[in-house]
Amino acid sequence: MPRQMTNDGDKSQAGLLEAMHQAQMIAWGPLLFQAAQVLKKRGILEALRKANPEGATISELSQLTKTSVYGVTVLLEAGLAAKLVVQEGASFRITKVGYLIDRDPMTRANMNFVGDVCYRPGEHLNQAIEDGAPAGLKELGPWPTVYDGLGELGEPARTSWLEFDHFYSDDSFPQVLPHVFSSQPKKILDVGGNTGKFTLAALRYDANVFVTVADLPGQIASCRKNIEEAGLASRWSPHEFSILKEEAHLPLGYDVIWMSQFLSCFSESEVVHNLSVARRAMGSKTRLIIMDNLWDRQKNSIAEMCLQATSLYFTVVANGTSRMYDGVTLLRCIEEAGLVVTSERDGIGWGHSMIECALPG
Amino acid sequence: MPRQMTNDGDKSQAGLLEAMHQAQMIAWGPLLFQAAQVLKKRGILEALRKANPEGATISELSQLTKTSVYGVTVLLEAGLAAKLVVQEGASFRITKVGYLIDRDPMTRANMNFVGDVCYRPGEHLNQAIEDGAPAGLKELGPWPTVYDGLGELGEPARTSWLEFDHFYSDDSFPQVLPHVFSSQPKKILDVGGNTGKFTLAALRYDANVFVTVADLPGQIASCRKNIEEAGLASRWSPHEFSILKEEAHLPLGYDVIWMSQFLSCFSESEVVHNLSVARRAMGSKTRLIIMDNLWDRQKNSIAEMCLQATSLYFTVVANGTSRMYDGVTLLRCIEEAGLVVTSERDGIGWGHSMIECALPG
Repeated sequence: MPRQMTNDGDKSQAGLLEAMHQAQMIAWGPLLFQAAQVLKKRGILEALRKANPEGATISELSQLTKTSVYGVTVLLEAGLAAKLVVQEGASFRITKVGYLIDRDPMTRANMNFVGDVCYRPGEHLNQAIEDGAPAGLKELGPWPTVYDGLGELGEPARTSWLEFDHFYSDDSFPQVLPHVFSSQPKKILDVGGNTGKFTLAALRYDANVFVTVADLPGQIASCRKNIEEAGLASRWSPHEFSILKEEAHLPLGYDVIWMSQFLSCFSESEVVHNLSVARRAMGSKTRLIIMDNLWDRQKNSIAEMCLQATSLYFTVVANGTSRMYDGVTLLRCIEEAGLVVTSERDGIGWGHSMIECALPG
Repeated sequence: MPRQMTNDGDKSQAGLLEAMHQAQMIAWGPLLFQAAQVLKKRGILEALRKANPEGATISELSQLTKTSVYGVTVLLEAGLAAKLVVQEGASFRITKVGYLIDRDPMTRANMNFVGDVCYRPGEHLNQAIEDGAPAGLKELGPWPTVYDGLGELGEPARTSWLEFDHFYSDDSFPQVLPHVFSSQPKKILDVGGNTGKFTLAALRYDANVFVTVADLPGQIASCRKNIEEAGLASRWSPHEFSILKEEAHLPLGYDVIWMSQFLSCFSESEVVHNLSVARRAMGSKTRLIIMDNLWDRQKNSIAEMCLQATSLYFTVVANGTSRMYDGVTLLRCIEEAGLVVTSERDGIGWGHSMIECALPG
């Protein structure tokens, strides 16, 4: 407990124990994270799930998971600290938190992403903020930004990166495709198509649609592979470009321009630039549809917190300049780019918002 | 949210949101830890304390702390996720949690210890458990255990290690010295004297006492320096030894044998061995006094949690075999070593227990 709260800060005693608990959760966070990962990896959480509701002893868990008695002991005690398990006499039982760490797909995607992509780079956060550059990325490879390195990213970082990225988008596509296709578009331009997930979903949704993917060469190669493997190569074309270049342009004549989980990869001034590049490719009937996770438009504080924490990945690993935006900021950027919002929808899938824009009246 | 809770695990819906929040605190823990460190390091928390209760805007904080608007933005948003700050309109205010992260000495000792000593090694936790060896220590230096390397440990790890170690013991010495000296001991044997903190306190407490420090050569050198600098060298002597050696022995004829924060550095079987080494040096009137933090004897769950998490340091950095013990385990070891407990006292300083032992009847 703090010896004294001096006369600055929120100094009332109410809630001080709770605050102290949260402060220690933060202080010990890296070690509790590692203990949770190892409890899962060694099958201790799984063995505890199966031993429910009786629970299991240290020596039973040691035998079941081929882990030393010492190892099970320190892991379970860390599990008590992290509230993954509870103890009654010699018996340990898994809690809801332990269950989520072991089985919940969102928690798994987040933990693998933090562990395999962000943990080591995280140490360089202050430097990244000092430099305005992803100072932690050197822990993963010699690239200026993560986007330059995605094709070469080693394992397990690559798989964890992709699973994190796809986890949040996969559930949303089925929910938004009816809206995207409500105007019967013949040609869709997928800006920042990445590995082709949305393009494949769109090509499968409507057998008559043609989709162009605009992205960097590495991502185009990845798209090409996935689209060819799906046997859909006759209805797509690539547009290799680097959107940040002064002279960057997008092809004309598309009914829909789609940007999914794309703008969060750029700084605010770059977001305005990118939207302006899109604006110059739009006609009076072109629909620009932006899908992104906006942290101020989430259903609960848990989703909000995950997005706010994800911003640190952009700072220290991705590019040092971008973040998960809030709706207030994104709408300001849209206005600055000379576009008008024609519809907004929140609460899609795992917390996406869809903002549709057009040229002004 | 998890799509479904299957029929294993604690599957009731009650408390599920709370559990999900805790699971995400764990999943994002390493990044929230780094953000909290940088918010403190760059003076943003300090500026917010001084701006209380009105709060401060991003641009004010950017100017005050010479940090980019982008940097302040991502750090404050991570601070929202970690509950260090709250936002009202454009203004951010510090919370009790933020205050503790910035100012509380225990939280500071814990965070610096985790950040500078445990963070990188932590990645090797599974290997450490597999090997029964401190597999993460190689991130700090080429030593078999941290005790072999303490003298050579680089900065900031060395300072953070010592501050953590001393933080927890310093407050306890004044409280236990009257008890230690209640029998007017003339000679005290400080086993595992480390940097000499207790020995110095004892030499200063009683101008007639003589103290022998028993420890490894590196620690004896560190003690010698500190005791000579204090001008107390005429009343101490060193006993260089490695307690784990088969033939290890302690000198005879001491009134008190003192072991402070010592047994937690050893495995359970080594604890029994060490206590047996002490037993062989004891006479019928010798008092063996053990001071340690026992996690099942703490005032609240916060202290308990800090100790349980500290065990992971012993696993992955210190020696791969020891931990913060609970009272049940320690009392069993004392019995196995052929000693009897003559008194017990909990709740000393920051959560120490003092267990006094003697030869049987």
